[in-house]
Amino acid sequence: MKIVKGNIIFTSAYEKFEVIENGYIVIENNKVKGTYKNLPKEYAELEIIDYENKLIIPGMNDLHCHAPQYRNVGIAMDKELLPWLNDYTFPEEAKYEDTQYAKEVYSRFIKELYKNGTTRAVAFATIHKESTKILMDLFKESGLGAYVGKVNMDRNSHEDLFEKTMTSINDTIEIIEEYKDKYSLVKPIITPRFVPTCSDELLERLGEIAEKYNLPVQSHLSENLGEINWVKELHPNTSSYAGVYDKYNLFGSTKTLMAHCVHLTEEEINLMKNRGVYVVHCPTSNANLGSGIMPIRKLLNSGVKIGFGTDVSGGHSFSIFKTMVYAIQLSKLLWSNDKDNDFLSLSEAFYIATKGGGSFFGKVGSFEEGYDFDALVIDDSDLCFEDYTLLERLEKVIYLGDDRNICCRYVNGRLI
Amino acid sequence: MKIVKGNIIFTSAYEKFEVIENGYIVIENNKVKGTYKNLPKEYAELEIIDYENKLIIPGMNDLHCHAPQYRNVGIAMDKELLPWLNDYTFPEEAKYEDTQYAKEVYSRFIKELYKNGTTRAVAFATIHKESTKILMDLFKESGLGAYVGKVNMDRNSHEDLFEKTMTSINDTIEIIEEYKDKYSLVKPIITPRFVPTCSDELLERLGEIAEKYNLPVQSHLSENLGEINWVKELHPNTSSYAGVYDKYNLFGSTKTLMAHCVHLTEEEINLMKNRGVYVVHCPTSNANLGSGIMPIRKLLNSGVKIGFGTDVSGGHSFSIFKTMVYAIQLSKLLWSNDKDNDFLSLSEAFYIATKGGGSFFGKVGSFEEGYDFDALVIDDSDLCFEDYTLLERLEKVIYLGDDRNICCRYVNGRLI
Repeated sequence: MKIVKGNIIFTSAYEKFEVIENGYIVIENNKVKGTYKNLPKEYAELEIIDYENKLIIPGMNDLHCHAPQYRNVGIAMDKELLPWLNDYTFPEEAKYEDTQYAKEVYSRFIKELYKNGTTRAVAFATIHKESTKILMDLFKESGLGAYVGKVNMDRNSHEDLFEKTMTSINDTIEIIEEYKDKYSLVKPIITPRFVPTCSDELLERLGEIAEKYNLPVQSHLSENLGEINWVKELHPNTSSYAGVYDKYNLFGSTKTLMAHCVHLTEEEINLMKNRGVYVVHCPTSNANLGSGIMPIRKLLNSGVKIGFGTDVSGGHSFSIFKTMVYAIQLSKLLWSNDKDNDFLSLSEAFYIATKGGGSFFGKVGSFEEGYDFDALVIDDSDLCFEDYTLLERLEKVIYLGDDRNICCRYVNGRLI
Repeated sequence: MKIVKGNIIFTSAYEKFEVIENGYIVIENNKVKGTYKNLPKEYAELEIIDYENKLIIPGMNDLHCHAPQYRNVGIAMDKELLPWLNDYTFPEEAKYEDTQYAKEVYSRFIKELYKNGTTRAVAFATIHKESTKILMDLFKESGLGAYVGKVNMDRNSHEDLFEKTMTSINDTIEIIEEYKDKYSLVKPIITPRFVPTCSDELLERLGEIAEKYNLPVQSHLSENLGEINWVKELHPNTSSYAGVYDKYNLFGSTKTLMAHCVHLTEEEINLMKNRGVYVVHCPTSNANLGSGIMPIRKLLNSGVKIGFGTDVSGGHSFSIFKTMVYAIQLSKLLWSNDKDNDFLSLSEAFYIATKGGGSFFGKVGSFEEGYDFDALVIDDSDLCFEDYTLLERLEKVIYLGDDRNICCRYVNGRLI
């Protein structure tokens, strides 16, 4: 058991922050036992880790990022999607055949997540089996929690980044067998890149594997209109893009997340809601690639589950703080044209970044009883003025803070 | 005379970067004499300041920021414009009656500009005469170049932030008389807050003062639709918002800049073009306040002069690097709906941030012959990979870099 003390802020619901000034969090077996304004007598003998005037908030959850695109973050942003993929992304991903390269660059990638306050991530690796294992091992070493996906793509790919259907399936199974019980916080996830790069056979087999091993699934959905038309051409008899994943049991049969979802139909939104499929909102990337603005208010109203993703390297920032800011800003640009379409509030953005996205990992992202203790300790002394409220301090950290303001990180009760 | 050496990047035109790897800039009397790949023999005896593998780029120009809103940067972002002004902005500005407060907070404001690589700024102060002088003195001490405006507002203001018309005029003249020749890089600028807060008499007199002293003018124009309608109600017989400034000789009779310009009419765009009035594009603020997306391609095509502004605290970032990123991103969101409306390229954004905005201060923002030597030296060793091109390195600094990457700043030839 341990106790941390400081200015505690979290969200148990979208609508509002829970704020405990100079409060206590009691942690038992790495989980939150309770939060208190006054420490109950029964805990009076325990040692207290006193963070004084600092803020203590849940850790950030990044539900969509491409680890092998680390090197391309923030370059070639002038390129349109196809040249960007063909000239930058695919050639870079092809390098991960080389495990030494993977080790070097994946280490830097994880360090960036760590620096920016991400405590749990869902990451795409590449098609390469050995490099994918290395990424999982490095996540384990770092102390961060992660789902890591070996990418599956057996068509419409770059010549240096091609795998045969059976190789893709066998490599996936090998990783699962080796890693499904190896680490407690780092696990495999089924990862068809997206519909256009996966044959029907591959999708069908991946659906079977996900079900057999009860593994989660991640992919991309409806990022831009060209992509949606392409899927329509490839699957003329399926009613929607989401419907293709659904046809192959890759849409909520097990825990599933879909990145982007900028241009969903009503039918697709209903399907996501009914199947409990997560939308991963990647506003920074959507702006960088000109994908459009995801209608977040509409999705929130529909009751779909939502988390945030940095989508590195479509997104250029590793920070979920900055992702919150972009999400709010893009929602305001929609709101400016339709004042009934209310913009995202700070508490809503914070909820999505913490408890909303965290729920993909289990009881993660809140300081309610029974939640894994994932937390950031924030020193905002360079940013704040004395008479700021705690929520103003938090807001300023989200808008202006950076890695220098994060002084401690806990994942599942452990200081990392 | 002095010589600096390093990887030199600048833009002399919108369309492309000038890049000199391991090149030399010869500086004479604080101005650029020339840039060279190989140092001419005549300079062989001079000492060289060798920045080795670092990047050397022109300094950043922030053409619109509100110095007294420093304390409110990044808080109350959930508020709509009117509650934000009435509950946060105006009460904060009212505090600048207190010169001690002004000194403390203005010092922090200028330090932030400095940290973020801004070498010249055009700033709003408040209505207060003494605090405005303090801001000018502090800019002078910092070494940064600046135009500083005592704000004029004699109607539709907050009760604690009200001035009588004649006080407004007399205080303005007092500052001008005292400061017009006091410093070489810090000068006064005529600053009607915006049409709704200025009586006709005040606008008329400010136009006369600007002309008499040949002083530049700054104000706000067409930021959001409610504001535009308000101006229409106040000036039913003037054909446009811009037309009101024009009527009082505050629209290009002397050098003039107008912040925002999100919703200009064709007539207004033509007027700006014909009068040489600058548009100050503040994309971060436009997103934060849901003002809308300024049609930058249309304005570029029309030939209007454009610079960037952070619009602190409507904008939450002091960084012109980040302003470039926002400008590119918002232009991509427009482009996503209209592919003929090309998004802003990196060189265009860089030109606007440097030579475009810099031209408001004179020959500023380029390394062409005769330009004031304003420069940043960038250490990007933590961001880049060995095989990046110089332009990829620059792009990465703009997207991901921060104050830690700026290791030296020059303004008008002087290391500050």
